[in-house]
Amino acid sequence: MSSPEPTSPETPRLLRALAGETLERPPIWFMRQAGRSLPEYRELRTRAKDFIAFCHDPEMAAEATLQPMRRFPLDAAIVFADILLIPRALGQEVWFEAGEGPRLGPLPEIAALEREIEASTGRLSSIGETLSRVRGELEPERALIGFAGAPWTVATYMIEGKGSNREAARTFAYQNPEVLDALLEVLVESTARYLVMQARAGAQALKIFESWAEQLAEDVFERIVIQPHRRIVERVRAAGVTVPFIGFPRGAGALVDNYAAGVPVEGVALDTQASAEQGRRLQRNGKCIQGALDNLLLRAGGPALDARVEQILEQWEGGPHIFNLGHGVMPDTPIAHIARVVERVTGKKVAAEMAA
Amino acid sequence: MSSPEPTSPETPRLLRALAGETLERPPIWFMRQAGRSLPEYRELRTRAKDFIAFCHDPEMAAEATLQPMRRFPLDAAIVFADILLIPRALGQEVWFEAGEGPRLGPLPEIAALEREIEASTGRLSSIGETLSRVRGELEPERALIGFAGAPWTVATYMIEGKGSNREAARTFAYQNPEVLDALLEVLVESTARYLVMQARAGAQALKIFESWAEQLAEDVFERIVIQPHRRIVERVRAAGVTVPFIGFPRGAGALVDNYAAGVPVEGVALDTQASAEQGRRLQRNGKCIQGALDNLLLRAGGPALDARVEQILEQWEGGPHIFNLGHGVMPDTPIAHIARVVERVTGKKVAAEMAA
Repeated sequence: MSSPEPTSPETPRLLRALAGETLERPPIWFMRQAGRSLPEYRELRTRAKDFIAFCHDPEMAAEATLQPMRRFPLDAAIVFADILLIPRALGQEVWFEAGEGPRLGPLPEIAALEREIEASTGRLSSIGETLSRVRGELEPERALIGFAGAPWTVATYMIEGKGSNREAARTFAYQNPEVLDALLEVLVESTARYLVMQARAGAQALKIFESWAEQLAEDVFERIVIQPHRRIVERVRAAGVTVPFIGFPRGAGALVDNYAAGVPVEGVALDTQASAEQGRRLQRNGKCIQGALDNLLLRAGGPALDARVEQILEQWEGGPHIFNLGHGVMPDTPIAHIARVVERVTGKKVAAEMAA
Repeated sequence: MSSPEPTSPETPRLLRALAGETLERPPIWFMRQAGRSLPEYRELRTRAKDFIAFCHDPEMAAEATLQPMRRFPLDAAIVFADILLIPRALGQEVWFEAGEGPRLGPLPEIAALEREIEASTGRLSSIGETLSRVRGELEPERALIGFAGAPWTVATYMIEGKGSNREAARTFAYQNPEVLDALLEVLVESTARYLVMQARAGAQALKIFESWAEQLAEDVFERIVIQPHRRIVERVRAAGVTVPFIGFPRGAGALVDNYAAGVPVEGVALDTQASAEQGRRLQRNGKCIQGALDNLLLRAGGPALDARVEQILEQWEGGPHIFNLGHGVMPDTPIAHIARVVERVTGKKVAAEMAA
């Protein structure tokens, strides 16, 4: 393992783990901790005309970001935003159909997208405002995470026009490699600029969400996942930003090892099926790992949940670990289940009125 | 690597690979090589009133099994059948909606299913007849594979009543562990009997298809994938059947290593995202590997297909390997693409009228 950077005890626990420290207990946060699982979010959401307007309203987005932080003693907040704000900022139409998820207009010409890269960051400035607001209200020991969707994942939506099984996008990768590579490069550059802006606005760690890393052949994974992630990290570093990165190649299976070797991220987020040994191998290779409780088990609760939490804590206690899910909190997850896990991991009590 | 059993040069190439031999070129077959990608299948299929009747008609099923063997110099045939014949033989209603896939009636009580185990094998005797017919017509150097769906995969259909994202079945696994375990045991026992029958009827290798091994937590994977597969292999062996097994835990990612260590199969089929190193690790640990060309690339064709075939041949040439896809042939795959890959791997010519 690479020797960890020295950090002070006042450094947020999440950042100590990402600096390579093995802590007496892992920091904890949950993917999608803000959002539909919380009644106060569902109430807040009714005040915006649509989901994109909500994401672009710094006051509402900051409030949504902070809501789970008030309920639970979580170690990190993650800015409330959406991975499809980038294609919209690049000029592709994006909207959300209630109950059906995202819809996108036709994919613009690559040259048209390229012309919008510079302007796109300004169109995302509200996310910077959200981060500044949250950082101003969040206690110093709690970290603030910024994020973006990874180029391939965002490209699948841009190509297919909606969430899908990605068959059309994966076929596109074989049949139009030059177009796909050019599209990924547009997304690498706009995403790097977006993340630099987020770090300057207050994000203390940056996460790259590759939601659809699954079922890619190894050579394709290298080309459309590893290389674009690496270029993003390198460009953000070249801009003088030094905050740590968490990469999340969801569904990458055994290719997570390739990812960890190929992308200079400090943290690697693991999905539900990560094995104990795979996580330990990453820890030995100098990575902080994050994960990987099954979000369906968090929702189901009961003795199986308690047992699995103990198992995860124990299997990765020998190296840097951030406790999290393998996928996002499901909207119908009982709040009491979240509270129970947070209490166990942090050793802190959740107020009774916040745990129901 | 365990030292391979001695085989004679007349032994079918597939069985030599499964016995641990590293061959000068791998045997080749394709998952779903029989079926909708072939016009002669589509013609044949119109003669049966429905898909289940087709599977249970030994004459038609044998013909479907043999069709790709006439076109291409493949090294193995796989009996034409369906993984949902087992729940039907156990008394659950199963039918196929055109264009929508399988539908199942309500899950019977476990006790009711248990009472049908013994009778279920007899209800599947037509599959044995298909195997006998095919074995009688197939050249001795070409192997015949029997198969069954794995208990968890079959259980997901039995619980959810159709193909799905398996969320309900995975939640069921957490909330009703005793019921699920009892259901899996019914399927282990009926599947073991079914596979013994297939081997006695002429199957020279047996494959267990776990189509839905993805996104299972490691402890769940151990309980609902590894243990049932192991029990099936052990019971088939205990019945005196010695033919080799191929296990296919599709989507298992890094947990394929757990699978290979926990299930005494001779061959492990890898899916599209298997890494070169993961395959070599399995070969070093004494397994024959099978896979893992992307079925979308087989359909797409072109220079990317040629390049990937070379890469797969090269990366696994140092140990026992069966060339195959990572998933089944898609119905709209051009026959010329299949012919091209078969010619490259076997070094044999496909007749021009068979390659279009």
